[in-house]
Amino acid sequence: MSQWKQIQQLEVGLLEHVDYLYNDNFPMDVRQGLAEWIECQDWETAERNESMAAMLFTNLLGQLERSCAQEPNFLQRHNLKIIHQQLQMKYNANPGLIARVISTCLREERRILSTACMQQQGPLENSMPN
Amino acid sequence: MSQWKQIQQLEVGLLEHVDYLYNDNFPMDVRQGLAEWIECQDWETAERNESMAAMLFTNLLGQLERSCAQEPNFLQRHNLKIIHQQLQMKYNANPGLIARVISTCLREERRILSTACMQQQGPLENSMPN
Repeated sequence: MSQWKQIQQLEVGLLEHVDYLYNDNFPMDVRQGLAEWIECQDWETAERNESMAAMLFTNLLGQLERSCAQEPNFLQRHNLKIIHQQLQMKYNANPGLIARVISTCLREERRILSTACMQQQGPLENSMPN
Repeated sequence: MSQWKQIQQLEVGLLEHVDYLYNDNFPMDVRQGLAEWIECQDWETAERNESMAAMLFTNLLGQLERSCAQEPNFLQRHNLKIIHQQLQMKYNANPGLIARVISTCLREERRILSTACMQQQGPLENSMPN
């Protein structure tokens, strides 16, 4: 199961922490629309390697364009077009920055998932017979 | 049929004109989510009446909060929360401005719909027998 699918199964309290990770710097529409592709790229290395970050950013924009062209819903297509323009303006001169933003979001998601995992294990252990 | 439903039935070329009307000043998510309520309010009068504009803006935020609370989809709920915050920051001190923005969008939509209507009537008249 992709990390993003696990995130969506969290209880409401933890989902609120996820809410804070996503804004115009990295819109949740992109995280959801390209979930598996995003999780397969090495954003941590790209944070420290400008040419790799530039390549990943170009690929991200390409993926977004394809999603946009294939999207049948007018509202969602409109939103993807705007997001594409905003990301291009924001990161074209500094693709290393988006690599850092995405890398941080993925790491924070893993931290939230491990918190959820520990919360679930607590009651399970307590309910075991002595 | 609501004006917004008619808009969604336009052909792609005219839909692109609609694209340009919507951005962070008045996100298309709000136009679509509150379509009928928006069309039932008198934004033109509110443009020239600050207290009416303030009341409409408060009601708009209330409608958005209700939509947000009832929205089952995590991504859409997240987007509505962000939009609510952004609109509050942008227009709280100047609700007349959002009345003007919405009024302009609705007027432009009607202009686009009448263009579409004239384009449809053209070939129909040409195809009538002499």
